[in-house]
Amino acid sequence: MISVIILGAGNVAAHLFNAFDGTEQVHVKQWYNRSIKSIQSYKNKVVITDDLSQLEKADVYIIAVSDDAIANLSTKLPFENRLVVHTSGSVNVHDLDKKNRRGVFYPLQTFSKAATLNFENVPICLEVLDKADLKTLKSLAKTIGSSTHKVNTDQRRALHLAAVFVNNFTNQLYRVAHEITESKGVEFDILKPLILETAKKVQDISPYMAQTGPAKRNDKKTIKKHLQLLESAQHKAIYELLTASIQKTHGRKKL
Amino acid sequence: MISVIILGAGNVAAHLFNAFDGTEQVHVKQWYNRSIKSIQSYKNKVVITDDLSQLEKADVYIIAVSDDAIANLSTKLPFENRLVVHTSGSVNVHDLDKKNRRGVFYPLQTFSKAATLNFENVPICLEVLDKADLKTLKSLAKTIGSSTHKVNTDQRRALHLAAVFVNNFTNQLYRVAHEITESKGVEFDILKPLILETAKKVQDISPYMAQTGPAKRNDKKTIKKHLQLLESAQHKAIYELLTASIQKTHGRKKL
Repeated sequence: MISVIILGAGNVAAHLFNAFDGTEQVHVKQWYNRSIKSIQSYKNKVVITDDLSQLEKADVYIIAVSDDAIANLSTKLPFENRLVVHTSGSVNVHDLDKKNRRGVFYPLQTFSKAATLNFENVPICLEVLDKADLKTLKSLAKTIGSSTHKVNTDQRRALHLAAVFVNNFTNQLYRVAHEITESKGVEFDILKPLILETAKKVQDISPYMAQTGPAKRNDKKTIKKHLQLLESAQHKAIYELLTASIQKTHGRKKL
Repeated sequence: MISVIILGAGNVAAHLFNAFDGTEQVHVKQWYNRSIKSIQSYKNKVVITDDLSQLEKADVYIIAVSDDAIANLSTKLPFENRLVVHTSGSVNVHDLDKKNRRGVFYPLQTFSKAATLNFENVPICLEVLDKADLKTLKSLAKTIGSSTHKVNTDQRRALHLAAVFVNNFTNQLYRVAHEITESKGVEFDILKPLILETAKKVQDISPYMAQTGPAKRNDKKTIKKHLQLLESAQHKAIYELLTASIQKTHGRKKL
């Protein structure tokens, strides 16, 4: 049995609580948040508190607060030499107060409040300063079915940055597509199977191998037609830049 | 029973043949290609030919050749007043020779030679000049499990353009992510669950509602860090443009 105390009340904190709460191998001893209101609805499931001085002893303290608040919260912890981790993709592990053993427990996934998430689909990137702590964090991730990946700070930052491309930016391309279809009164829904298939394809083959389309073929006629169709200057700019990027990757001349 | 003759030997032609061949409600009477070699391997399954004068009578002739070759091939068909459709997202239905009844049978999906495709996940966009032909094309799509969508030329073009954003451009963002992770010696595989989840999310909620991340939050500190991390000028430009696009969509000030 691994005992855990969660600090913070955002999406990551809530999803981690629900996942740990669903396994017998983890005991969430307490859930702390600065404002008790945000976690009030969990009070029948776990001891909630807004008082750091009340924190009990646990195997792992998980700080799941916004990036800017991590360092400060870690200095306020009223104990020493315990394992304290944060869940951020970009904050340095050394930003945690050195009075405790420090680590990172970074779940690489998109979290929204509503959707329930199966942690089998959430790879967790681990970083520790003391090797002995790696075992604890691995065991903890394993209880909820997550795969674990030992990464250094540079690698974690690269993953966080790459995640912005495959998640936020990809989602914005979906949004642009939504605007394009809407402008002609055609359902965005028709694109949904293609969106899913595009994501599925790179589960098995590399994005390089998966590429198709007018940019890769250097089909100038279609590219020209598409640019004429685009009404927004920003959409045109995105089209041109990503077409150039594809052609650079696949060794075509620039537009 | 609907009788069909396929013309062309590309990915769309091959996937359509396999799908029709797998249903009892369709009889693929012949498969034509200019070069017989490309379809030689199918000769035990269907009558193959490279001679247009040998084409028999069928309910639907499906021209699945490259965009530039469609018009020309349609003029060479040695018959009149039969239903001839092309499968392109961007070619005008009027580019087909008017001696026949014309239509479009545009499967909106990404086709690669290797992967087998379930046509239940392939919406087919239909366009006809003679309303009576719509029924035939709908029935034909239904035999392979596809949903059908009646669209006009403008709408089909918008879908084709939007498909470039959600497929080719999205795939290029995956490629950029691959380059970023590779440069730090970290596995691209760690991003695969996030890629899939991002695509799944917009099956149920709009891309607008699904958006998260530093651009939407206007988290200038993280954006600045990310831009510093990016080594390629083109990757930086993509980051800046898509961040600006997200901020425009969500009413944030420009960077």
